[in-house]
Order: sequence, then structure tokens, then C-alpha cells
Amino acid sequence: MERAILEGVMKLLEDGVPLAELSIERVARTAGVGKATIYRRWSGKEELFVDVLRAAEPPDPELPGTSLRDDLVVLLESLRRRGLASRSSVILHNVYAQMKHSPRIWAEYHDTVIAPRRRLTLEALRRAQENGELRPDVDLDLANDMFVGPMLVRSIMRPDGDLPEGLAEQIVDTVLEGLRPVSSTAS
Amino acid sequence: MERAILEGVMKLLEDGVPLAELSIERVARTAGVGKATIYRRWSGKEELFVDVLRAAEPPDPELPGTSLRDDLVVLLESLRRRGLASRSSVILHNVYAQMKHSPRIWAEYHDTVIAPRRRLTLEALRRAQENGELRPDVDLDLANDMFVGPMLVRSIMRPDGDLPEGLAEQIVDTVLEGLRPVSSTAS
Repeated sequence: MERAILEGVMKLLEDGVPLAELSIERVARTAGVGKATIYRRWSGKEELFVDVLRAAEPPDPELPGTSLRDDLVVLLESLRRRGLASRSSVILHNVYAQMKHSPRIWAEYHDTVIAPRRRLTLEALRRAQENGELRPDVDLDLANDMFVGPMLVRSIMRPDGDLPEGLAEQIVDTVLEGLRPVSSTAS
Repeated sequence: MERAILEGVMKLLEDGVPLAELSIERVARTAGVGKATIYRRWSGKEELFVDVLRAAEPPDPELPGTSLRDDLVVLLESLRRRGLASRSSVILHNVYAQMKHSPRIWAEYHDTVIAPRRRLTLEALRRAQENGELRPDVDLDLANDMFVGPMLVRSIMRPDGDLPEGLAEQIVDTVLEGLRPVSSTAS
């Protein structure tokens, strides 16, 4: 039932119905259910819409927990794939673009998708700092932004940004090592 | 004359006129000039509008050229100030938000504001790689994204992101040094 409703919304979006015209009534008609059925599961259009996005997006990754590098590569690779998905899928692309015009949907998406992912990353960084895999003097919020920033700039802010295979590994390794030349006298 | 026209547009935006309703005719009336006067200087609404943004934004920084660190701190500090300006100025904030809905204005802004700034950064990075201030094996586009990414994530993508004084220095130094703990046996 839930699946049918989510697919009904996807179908409407595929047909090019703009977000603003996507009423609960219209979704109910498309899915062949009553409005009450939808309201039993979702408190409003915003919550339903964010669930549609979650169903269409690649799922959140499981962190291997084997090392900081491994965890970060998995996290950044999932951002890279999401960037590629939103470029190749016209629906996802339009949905992201429209979402930004709706502060309520954006807030709901932030709270249920972005914030948990950020907490996952911050926990991985905190564990790594305790293990000695991460410099002890680095602010964890800054460390988070240093890893995800370069990937987000490419995937979201620069629509023609290069997202080649191996980019996640390249970013993680380069941020860990730093950009200063290695001194020839260092061991 | 040019100044009066730019200020006319600012005034209309301050009064809350949405970008979509901001016609050349209306700008001409507000500035007390003829439409032909505007068209002699700007080929269309997009070009005029981007010039308004440039007049309202902090100007592009002059790079000191004393070291890679100094150049990057100046570049990132100007991004930080732009982030703060767009938060404190209701006009700038609305203008950025509306600009993203207009692909033509966004493209014009990208070509005349963002792309030259990016070229400036890439040139500074290239000089530093030749001088030995930057690892020789690092891709310059990636290096650019590693420095500007964390600042852009905070200033643009996370509207409540912290932009404290000293953030530019902190990002530049941390990206240069890397996040791995310094080995105790290194010199």
C-alpha cells in the first residue's frame, strides 16, 4: 500500500506535474486509495514527499568500521553516486531543484536525510580521533566539512563537475595527507 | 548614470519586487532614464542584474602573492565575508535565492563572477606547485575544491553554518597540513 502511494507520486513527477500542484488528493486518485489512507501514514505533503525521495535515492551506506579511511571512502562514494544519480535521472534532478523552493520540504529533508548522515560521519570521526587515526587538535565539524565539502562542491554546486570513479578515495587520501610537499628530511 | 540605474534596481529589490517582475521598463522608470539608455549599456536583464550583484557584493580580492598560504587565506576570507554579507543583507539573500531559479542569470553570474575567481585560485595553485609550496602530484582542480569546498559548504549549503573569524586561516592551514596525526618519528 505504502509502495503504491510512493509509486503514484513518482508517476506524477515523471509525468511532469510540478511539486506545487501535487496535492494529497491527486496522489490518492493516482494510487487508487482514499485520502484518509495517506493521512494515516503521513501527516502531510512534506513528509510524503521526503519519503518519495528516500525511496528514489541510493540507501544510506553501512560503514565498514575497519578504519577511518574505509569509513570515509564509503561515505564519500555514496555522495558521489547520489550526485551521478541526480544527473542521470530527470525526475531526481527536478525533484531536488523544486525541493529547494519549498522551505518546509527542504527542512524535512534536512532533518530526516542530511542530519542523520552528518551524525554518522561525525561519529566515525570521533572514533578515529580516539583511536589516533585523526589529529587530536582538529575540530570535528571542520574535519567533516573538509571531507564532504570537495565532493558536494562537485556534485551539487558545479553541475558540470567531474565525478570520476576513484574520486572518493582521492579526496579522502589527499585530505588525510595534506597538500604541503612532504619534507625530504621527514621519516 | 550607470550608478543611478544600478541603484534603481537595488531600490526595487529592497521594495520586495520579485526578479520575475523586474522588467527593463520598470527599471528605466525607477531610475528616471529611457529604456534605450539601459540597452546602450546592457544587452538584457540578465547582464544588468549580474552587474547589480557585483556592485552589492564585496569586490574581488587582490592576492598578496607572498605565499600560497597568504593568497589562499585572502581568497577564503573573501568567500567568508560574502557568506556573512548574504546572511545579514536581506536583499543579497533574496537575490541569490531568486537567481538560482533563473538559469540564464545564474549562467551569466557564473561566467562573469565565479569563473574568473576560480581561474585566479587555479593560477595561485599552479604558481605554488612550481615553487614547491604545493605537492607536485596533486591535481589542481582537486586542490581548488579542497580549499574552497569547506568554506562554501558552510556559507552556502548550510545556512546556519558557523563562519567565525579565523576560519579562512584554519581551513587553509588544516588542508595544507592534512588530518593524519603527525608521526612522532618525523622530523
